[in-house]
Amino acid sequence: MLKDIGIFFKPKSIAIVGASSRAGKPGYEVINNIVANGYEGEVFLVNPKGGEILGYKVYRSIENLPDGIDLAVIILPARDNPVAIRACVRHGIKNFVLAAGGFKEVDEQGEAIQDEIVRIIEESGIRVIGPNTSGHTSTSWKFTSSFFPLGKVPRGRVSYVAQTGNFSTHTMRHIITHEHFGVAKVIGIGNKLDIDESDALEYLVEDDETRAIIMYLESIKNPKRFMEVADRVTRVKPVIVLKSGRSERGSKAAVAHTAAMASNDKIIDGAFKQVGITRIYKYSHLIYAGKALSYMPLPNGNRVSLLAPSGAMLVSLADFCQNDLSIEVPDLEESSRQKLQDISPDYIRMRNPVDIWPAATTHGIESGYGRAMEIVLDDPNIDAVVPVLMLVDRIQIPSMQFIVDIAHKYPEKPIYVTFSGDKKYEEEAKVFLETHGVPTFPMIEEPFEVLEIMARCRRAMERG
Amino acid sequence: MLKDIGIFFKPKSIAIVGASSRAGKPGYEVINNIVANGYEGEVFLVNPKGGEILGYKVYRSIENLPDGIDLAVIILPARDNPVAIRACVRHGIKNFVLAAGGFKEVDEQGEAIQDEIVRIIEESGIRVIGPNTSGHTSTSWKFTSSFFPLGKVPRGRVSYVAQTGNFSTHTMRHIITHEHFGVAKVIGIGNKLDIDESDALEYLVEDDETRAIIMYLESIKNPKRFMEVADRVTRVKPVIVLKSGRSERGSKAAVAHTAAMASNDKIIDGAFKQVGITRIYKYSHLIYAGKALSYMPLPNGNRVSLLAPSGAMLVSLADFCQNDLSIEVPDLEESSRQKLQDISPDYIRMRNPVDIWPAATTHGIESGYGRAMEIVLDDPNIDAVVPVLMLVDRIQIPSMQFIVDIAHKYPEKPIYVTFSGDKKYEEEAKVFLETHGVPTFPMIEEPFEVLEIMARCRRAMERG
Repeated sequence: MLKDIGIFFKPKSIAIVGASSRAGKPGYEVINNIVANGYEGEVFLVNPKGGEILGYKVYRSIENLPDGIDLAVIILPARDNPVAIRACVRHGIKNFVLAAGGFKEVDEQGEAIQDEIVRIIEESGIRVIGPNTSGHTSTSWKFTSSFFPLGKVPRGRVSYVAQTGNFSTHTMRHIITHEHFGVAKVIGIGNKLDIDESDALEYLVEDDETRAIIMYLESIKNPKRFMEVADRVTRVKPVIVLKSGRSERGSKAAVAHTAAMASNDKIIDGAFKQVGITRIYKYSHLIYAGKALSYMPLPNGNRVSLLAPSGAMLVSLADFCQNDLSIEVPDLEESSRQKLQDISPDYIRMRNPVDIWPAATTHGIESGYGRAMEIVLDDPNIDAVVPVLMLVDRIQIPSMQFIVDIAHKYPEKPIYVTFSGDKKYEEEAKVFLETHGVPTFPMIEEPFEVLEIMARCRRAMERG
Repeated sequence: MLKDIGIFFKPKSIAIVGASSRAGKPGYEVINNIVANGYEGEVFLVNPKGGEILGYKVYRSIENLPDGIDLAVIILPARDNPVAIRACVRHGIKNFVLAAGGFKEVDEQGEAIQDEIVRIIEESGIRVIGPNTSGHTSTSWKFTSSFFPLGKVPRGRVSYVAQTGNFSTHTMRHIITHEHFGVAKVIGIGNKLDIDESDALEYLVEDDETRAIIMYLESIKNPKRFMEVADRVTRVKPVIVLKSGRSERGSKAAVAHTAAMASNDKIIDGAFKQVGITRIYKYSHLIYAGKALSYMPLPNGNRVSLLAPSGAMLVSLADFCQNDLSIEVPDLEESSRQKLQDISPDYIRMRNPVDIWPAATTHGIESGYGRAMEIVLDDPNIDAVVPVLMLVDRIQIPSMQFIVDIAHKYPEKPIYVTFSGDKKYEEEAKVFLETHGVPTFPMIEEPFEVLEIMARCRRAMERG
């Protein structure tokens, strides 16, 4: 079972069984996605009606397909899956994505069909993603098996593994339209009849395109194997997991099980820590952790310098870091402090956190923020820097190029930008910065929440 | 000292001492703000150069002003304040906003000047906001004393009291450009030589325009009085306070004081609870709590129903509510559950949290979300509803009018909207909903964080 699943991510030829000519139908949208992503391999469509869809010939039957197609995507009702899979197997197809739901998660009939597919897998040695999956994506190969209208999925450095159809659907769509980072691989593991989170980890740790792995899991199929694999993988690449079902309600368990669940969740917490998995608790952090990992290195530690245009923000953000997160806002070297003092009026005593407004009003935003950022980035006590940029009408808005330049000059220390000011400038600055390699975050607390996650990733990678 | 400070919020005539003809200077921007807000009272400008600024005559000296102007805004260097105030007092002016910094917060010289102003206050009985304040705003009176380029400040139902210049500056600007709610009063209390947080509370509890009060405080001038006043006010209107200086770093205290600070903060926590103050810990919640209070009633309790288009979101949000917040995601009445089942396919067993996607794909977004929202709003176990709206390409985007209609139909239960989908539709939906009275929140966890704050406000108001 440990044989390579790499062919799923670089198939030379694929079959879509259940292709449809009707826009909106999964059997159409998957083809549309494949076209939109520029897939360069051969595409064989199967539908009894025949004809042509989006320029591809439609075969009337699996029996008519040539032998040895690399991957079949089956988009048929659950009950029709076993027959189709067997037909494909007869034509030498060894790898399958089973899109449909309606299996074990629904009723006994579905469970029986699922059991039959398990038997086929055991008999034939085929590999299967799903069923009950919205597919997988391999941006370097310009390929996706998703039937959700995604359009072109941008290429990036983070890979996602999601035990839910909806990650590779509307959450990906959210990422594609709100953000400027891309993904390497996305794997919707669905009911994980065959390929599961452990297989995904083993594949992704070897994948050169993947710098970090982010997972959404509701269950762990083989906990022992998963812990063994994770213990190995997390020393090489960050592995971040949102494991849901923490609460009674979340886990949909009966009231009588509350205590058991709570203790189970603590066991998971402890086990994850032991094997270096960085656990997260907010769905949004699936996106924002991916964003931080896409643009910036991991910080070497949890010590931040923050620059804000308001004493109130400085104080409340420092409180938030130190009381609600395990992020330090340490003292700077006296020489750094003095340099901050040199660019600031006498009436303010500079320290970390950095009250940047006096320097910014004296020297302008670019020079004030820019010089202060370099001073704190040079300081050995600082692992990461968060500037809260104030961009408002009537105060000259500089090009954000200076932040891009600083990020290039300090490639080993993450810079997370956030804003307080006029929306239009923030939107412009976000687009500019992110298309030039610097991530920005909505809400001024978010960079610190993300930094805390990144610092835990670093600790996990360097554990003994 | 307890005499009414209402005149600050409805002055019939004002003097700007230190008016400037140079755009960008505080002495100019304050006039520009006054014009932008449409102030209808008399405006007397004072500057030794004379002339005219933005259509107003400039008096060369305070001595030339007519007697009995309601309010003077002094925008002069700290050292020039005492002489100017005394001159104003001689002309019958009794109310002052002192904008400049450079007093006790800076050095001994500043402290001496501040002490002199205290003596003038004691001798003459004048009332003072500041010094070291960016001013105050009274939207019903179309007036502001802020010297920060704000433009027209929209009128609303929430009032802010901030012990920081920067709230009524760039944070207000952030609210004005990102949000669609307004404010009733904003008071930057600054160094609070005279008017402090207790005075502000006493005034605002009587102010018909103010539905709720949100404060940022770094210190409490007279804790005993503040607690007495708060105990009274919080039974009438919600009072939300971000009290900073929780951490050693945040409080800028010496290392040796850490323990003392920590215990002090716990004392504050306990005291706030006792007198019904709802404490918040994130600067962003100053904005989002204000947003929730501006649009929606307080919930009657902490029991939420959430509707999301993804099982993963449902499960992780329910976890977040129950494990990380004190928000309940309770069972529905069986009759409600059955109604949800009636609009959903058989293969899914409906419950709270509500997996809305099957109903939305069967009946369309408007009908699916709309009917489900009404079902859970009708349920006596539910105090508030959060729909996570999925708006993506190729799925028909309905008008958001149906949510506005539902909000009108259920005026006693808050509805907080959030999104997962295509940015362009979300932006459009946000603008439509908020200009029609329904608040939306960025990041899917935010509505629940805000709901938890609102539920605490409700508990505080109804305490024995």
